[in-house]
Amino acid sequence: MINIDFLIKDLELVRKQSPLIHNITNLVVMNNTANALLAIGASPVMAHALDEVADMTKIASALVLNIGTLDVELIKAMERSGKMANQMNIPIIFDPVGAGATPFRDKCCKRLINECKPTIIRGNASEILALQNTQVQTKGVDSTDASVDALDAAKKLAKEIKSTVVISGDIDFITDGEKVAKVKNGNPMMEKVTGMGCTSTAIIACFAAINPNPFLASLHGMAVMGIAGEIAAENSKGTGSLQLNFLDELYQLTSTTLKKHIKL
Amino acid sequence: MINIDFLIKDLELVRKQSPLIHNITNLVVMNNTANALLAIGASPVMAHALDEVADMTKIASALVLNIGTLDVELIKAMERSGKMANQMNIPIIFDPVGAGATPFRDKCCKRLINECKPTIIRGNASEILALQNTQVQTKGVDSTDASVDALDAAKKLAKEIKSTVVISGDIDFITDGEKVAKVKNGNPMMEKVTGMGCTSTAIIACFAAINPNPFLASLHGMAVMGIAGEIAAENSKGTGSLQLNFLDELYQLTSTTLKKHIKL
Amino acid sequence: MINIDFLIKDLELVRKQSPLIHNITNLVVMNNTANALLAIGASPVMAHALDEVADMTKIASALVLNIGTLDVELIKAMERSGKMANQMNIPIIFDPVGAGATPFRDKCCKRLINECKPTIIRGNASEILALQNTQVQTKGVDSTDASVDALDAAKKLAKEIKSTVVISGDIDFITDGEKVAKVKNGNPMMEKVTGMGCTSTAIIACFAAINPNPFLASLHGMAVMGIAGEIAAENSKGTGSLQLNFLDELYQLTSTTLKKHIKL
Repeated sequence: MINIDFLIKDLELVRKQSPLIHNITNLVVMNNTANALLAIGASPVMAHALDEVADMTKIASALVLNIGTLDVELIKAMERSGKMANQMNIPIIFDPVGAGATPFRDKCCKRLINECKPTIIRGNASEILALQNTQVQTKGVDSTDASVDALDAAKKLAKEIKSTVVISGDIDFITDGEKVAKVKNGNPMMEKVTGMGCTSTAIIACFAAINPNPFLASLHGMAVMGIAGEIAAENSKGTGSLQLNFLDELYQLTSTTLKKHIKL
Repeated sequence: MINIDFLIKDLELVRKQSPLIHNITNLVVMNNTANALLAIGASPVMAHALDEVADMTKIASALVLNIGTLDVELIKAMERSGKMANQMNIPIIFDPVGAGATPFRDKCCKRLINECKPTIIRGNASEILALQNTQVQTKGVDSTDASVDALDAAKKLAKEIKSTVVISGDIDFITDGEKVAKVKNGNPMMEKVTGMGCTSTAIIACFAAINPNPFLASLHGMAVMGIAGEIAAENSKGTGSLQLNFLDELYQLTSTTLKKHIKL
Repeated sequence: MINIDFLIKDLELVRKQSPLIHNITNLVVMNNTANALLAIGASPVMAHALDEVADMTKIASALVLNIGTLDVELIKAMERSGKMANQMNIPIIFDPVGAGATPFRDKCCKRLINECKPTIIRGNASEILALQNTQVQTKGVDSTDASVDALDAAKKLAKEIKSTVVISGDIDFITDGEKVAKVKNGNPMMEKVTGMGCTSTAIIACFAAINPNPFLASLHGMAVMGIAGEIAAENSKGTGSLQLNFLDELYQLTSTTLKKHIKL
């Protein structure tokens, strides 16, 4: 269960240290991701050129790899940054957008996981299921309850590759292969705004940049997402408003708000 | 003239089936396009890598090709997806952004039209005029009334390539070369928000995904755009508000709103 | 000191002539930049393909080069457009995003400055300091006051390369190497919205397109940014609102508002 005081302390640290988050991410969400990172108090940088990615990662406090609009060149850049991050002990947060949709995506996920050893992976249930199938080479879909299957897949994957795995959904699950934590905040309208998942990944990166415990960083990131998104959605008549209100809530988030809204 | 009951039925179908729309589109509008598709109830995917575009198109219900920020590699990806769409009988909606601005753009338009046989083409008057000139190799600008010229060009183009052609403007025209339909909804402020035209193209794709009649799909798409945009603009003090309100209106659109606002 | 009547006259000219601004810019801000250009009354075009950039620049009234998400191909496109702009006497406004962050960025800045001879350069203090170091090959950071250092660097750089240099910050400085003008409008929250600097660069381009004096164009562009941003921020509870309100303010800006809010 989440310790609200630890969450508050970590959010204060993010704001105080304003960690540089290097994002190699997709073309759809770059603006939102950068704005969410600024709103929470971090410093975003987006850079993908092979000629500079490693240099950029070197000065960052966390690296986000998001394959939403991947191509061969971008995957090369991700690998280069990932290896630098591994060398420098910089946490990597991997977002396997669309895993399972095409063989190319699955191959790239496998390669990135093997080459870059992500610290944390965040996806929705079907993406995590696809990853685990790709990685562990078993199908494993025996239950009819998708979220149970996905949690099972997440645990296996986390153990197999020694990462923390996060499944976003109505309830978010965070697991290191043994422990499981849940985040119950959020609002279904969030799924109707493009890139909210990608934003979660970037927000987790902020917490991973200032907390060496990936399980807690993931938990704190998802809690902040869920709370800001939930408050924003309650004040939104549609998805346009939600995208705006979410940034406003993230920008204004106080310890009082966190305490009042957290669902334990 | 539009049949409002058919429009309502088709909007319900879009929401019920949530068709996957594969977009190979420009860098300026990706976020807006994805959000508009989500707001209306469809499922957007943006993917452009040569290694996966055909696989992505294969699982989609419609393909959007938009050349706004084209380059040679992107055109190759569009061709590959377009051929798969043709094979699988998936409708292609082509947006010739900036046609006529450079020789390269015109050459790419010609190539895409010839290689991919788009089901529907949507552009503004000058883009459609440029396309028709490129395609049919006649100048044909005899009248001093641009919209008459453009409609004439649209008809010729539609006949020549056996497509439905849509001209966006104060009044939108839809033609299959014989029939012409008009959409009178909309607001001039919409032109001052980047990518509203591109959004129209994607919204048409939603209707083409669930209605095999490209003429009706285009008519329904443009009517929804015009109505949502018109209501949004009336409540906007500027273009920032309009971009947001448009998504909110699209998200909230009911049959009552459609009936109340449609201009026949 | 700024002459408010000249500013009003130039804003009217921008709206009347609606100059075409060719942007080769970064992936994070394309949508915002296009919307800001539309809101102020200009016509944006984003195009980066080697096969068409020169043709696009040829028909534009100003060229924006912004290296935010640069790569080798993009720099080639910038050079090609830059040379065409030089030939045609079209003003180039250069935004050295992230200068100093990586050796690759510094090398590209140096190359673009030497090959394209920008008319105006706009950056924050650290970017201008980085440029001047790259260019003039001296470190020059003797003072402990960053803005004094940066202004000193800006003056040297402006003289060395015969450009106007703009430093954005709490107070903006504009210099041609001799004269220095200040813009005192603005709000610190603007730094927390991604791409506000990039938008400044594009807004300056609008004024450079209609005023042959780069010093005045820069001054007018920064004044409009500062005033619209300041009013927008005062009505925003967070950065999501600010991004929207800024576009609304830009769209609505009147001579009365300019006169009322300008800080001399």
